[in-house]
Amino acid sequence: MKVSIIGVATTKFGELWSVSPRALAHEAMSGALKDAGIENGRIQALFVGNMLSGMLGGQEHLGAFFAEELGFSHAAAIKIEGACASGGLAIHAAVSGILSGQYETVAVLGVEKMTDHKPEDVAAALMGAGSSQERASGCTFPGLYAILARVHMLKFGTTQEDMAAVAVKNHYHASLNPNAQFHRPITIEAVLKSHKVTDPLTLLDCSPISDGASALILSIKHQASSINIVASSVATDTLGLAERNNLTQLQATKEAAMRAYKQAGIEAKDIDVAEVHDCFTIAEILALEDLGITKKGDAAGGIRRGEFTLGSAKRVVVNPSGGLKGCGHPIGATGVKQVVELVEQLRGEAGKRQVKDARVGLAHNVGGSGATAVVHILKK
Amino acid sequence: MKVSIIGVATTKFGELWSVSPRALAHEAMSGALKDAGIENGRIQALFVGNMLSGMLGGQEHLGAFFAEELGFSHAAAIKIEGACASGGLAIHAAVSGILSGQYETVAVLGVEKMTDHKPEDVAAALMGAGSSQERASGCTFPGLYAILARVHMLKFGTTQEDMAAVAVKNHYHASLNPNAQFHRPITIEAVLKSHKVTDPLTLLDCSPISDGASALILSIKHQASSINIVASSVATDTLGLAERNNLTQLQATKEAAMRAYKQAGIEAKDIDVAEVHDCFTIAEILALEDLGITKKGDAAGGIRRGEFTLGSAKRVVVNPSGGLKGCGHPIGATGVKQVVELVEQLRGEAGKRQVKDARVGLAHNVGGSGATAVVHILKK
Repeated sequence: MKVSIIGVATTKFGELWSVSPRALAHEAMSGALKDAGIENGRIQALFVGNMLSGMLGGQEHLGAFFAEELGFSHAAAIKIEGACASGGLAIHAAVSGILSGQYETVAVLGVEKMTDHKPEDVAAALMGAGSSQERASGCTFPGLYAILARVHMLKFGTTQEDMAAVAVKNHYHASLNPNAQFHRPITIEAVLKSHKVTDPLTLLDCSPISDGASALILSIKHQASSINIVASSVATDTLGLAERNNLTQLQATKEAAMRAYKQAGIEAKDIDVAEVHDCFTIAEILALEDLGITKKGDAAGGIRRGEFTLGSAKRVVVNPSGGLKGCGHPIGATGVKQVVELVEQLRGEAGKRQVKDARVGLAHNVGGSGATAVVHILKK
Repeated sequence: MKVSIIGVATTKFGELWSVSPRALAHEAMSGALKDAGIENGRIQALFVGNMLSGMLGGQEHLGAFFAEELGFSHAAAIKIEGACASGGLAIHAAVSGILSGQYETVAVLGVEKMTDHKPEDVAAALMGAGSSQERASGCTFPGLYAILARVHMLKFGTTQEDMAAVAVKNHYHASLNPNAQFHRPITIEAVLKSHKVTDPLTLLDCSPISDGASALILSIKHQASSINIVASSVATDTLGLAERNNLTQLQATKEAAMRAYKQAGIEAKDIDVAEVHDCFTIAEILALEDLGITKKGDAAGGIRRGEFTLGSAKRVVVNPSGGLKGCGHPIGATGVKQVVELVEQLRGEAGKRQVKDARVGLAHNVGGSGATAVVHILKK
């Protein structure tokens, strides 16, 4: 597999009260087109990743909506939804569109506007990603990930300090990222002392509610400077936690990773930089283990020892963008932003947060509490 | 292009009060798997077409939801949304998935449950397919298609009787289809006398609110008995009517048709059977003209002369299933059901509504008032 990424851009993520979804999309896509050096008339198909526009804003049909808005006149356009994996799935569909021979040049837009709505409405809408039993019982995602955290703590001795170390690392990385939602480094103590959301998770264990948009231009035609997608895989699991046999792993991540490594012909140890789905701090610990970056039970220690932190990393830097935790998590945009970050890293254009000599990158995007997982592998 | 359709099935369409979306999906998919003669473990990816589950039911993430429900354990799964074209777009994404080389055997599920909700809530949710101006002004789709009808009447002398003839034909076809929502033939007079929804459209000019599910199994491997998809195309236009230069045509249909004919290496005159998007009677008139099946302005006369009706057709039978008008219109299922119908026709298994010697079929699925159009061409 080889699909070239010829243009990337992202808006700043955050509480962007004064900016509309249209403006976010324009900013991200015009940036990506400019980066690719092409006009919008060249785009043959648009793949939009978004979750909440219908439930919160009453607007669906976002494929045609943004094709019109962005001037992709009469292009094919498709909206993809898979909860918090919507962005990754949109990239997967776009990659398929190119490899199928139907399209030479396509655009991917991930976009979400969350802060215009009441937090309780957003929380309720987000549970659209969960199982009907979980929704009916009043669960929210912090509660579901708190269960995963508790099981991991019981089985592997993982501590609240270990989880806090994920937040500390990712806020530090975010402090180096001008597009991140948060710019202030935090401490383990600050995480532990911030108020409890769902025991054992505190506020600073949770990724925020965010606005933002990110965009990619993919092409079948390789340019000298372009980075290539060499693997794109998707796997699913049960929506609800109650139906799973093992709560110390996300099986969908393991399956998607296995397929992606096979497609790319690489192993986990070959990865130089990874953007993983840290919607909660425990999620990054699970991700590192399920992706095979560490052995099961070893991620927390590695994170605390700084083995995945810029400047002190041993072999792979994890979430140099700040991840969902520090950079922000505008649902549909997240999976696309992960790939934008990897492209900037592999190009050597990541500025203060540049991972040295990065040649292989991995993006890992999760929907719900692990019902969908998407893995992309990029090579220089 | 050549992707084989190795299994098809649809539920009955209608007001299925006692049946859940899960049960609809099970019935359609188990039928399609049985038809294909394969077990669900063979499905590598599931593409779900649905529009309203989030807005009306609070449940999103339908890819993973139905992958779990249907026993496609750890398969890739993606939900596609493009208003009333969601089903057609899901097929397009599935075709891309196969042609990309990523998947050998995939399933497409179109599903919608509409009758469990208050009609005014359904009407409001459906406007999620329209432009923000149209939504803000209180337009609904009957109103938008009434505008298209008025312009067509002014420009081409199309009459209410002409439009009624579409309903009469499609209800007649539906009377031969055991899965159709309506089984009673109607008359021109009945259409004209039914109450006005939006002048000039009466109740019987409008497709109904429906429940239903339809499913396909697609494979890269050709079997002796399988029908092939030889073209799959998507095009878009502005969401709102106000932004268009010409209201006597749907430009997205014209573009998608042009691309599809080119892919398939055929012309409109080669089509033996067509399932077109008759959400309102005027929409079928537009479709026949924009697909090039008749010249602009000629469709209405042809329909009234019975040129597209089973038994009296000259060269192509249009909407032998009964179309959206007679068979019903469960949004996400519609585009998938069109292809199910074509496969049954090309196999010679359509029973009382069999189109004689059908070898080439075309499916035409529209989102909104023409902002998205999807065309598939099938060959025996």
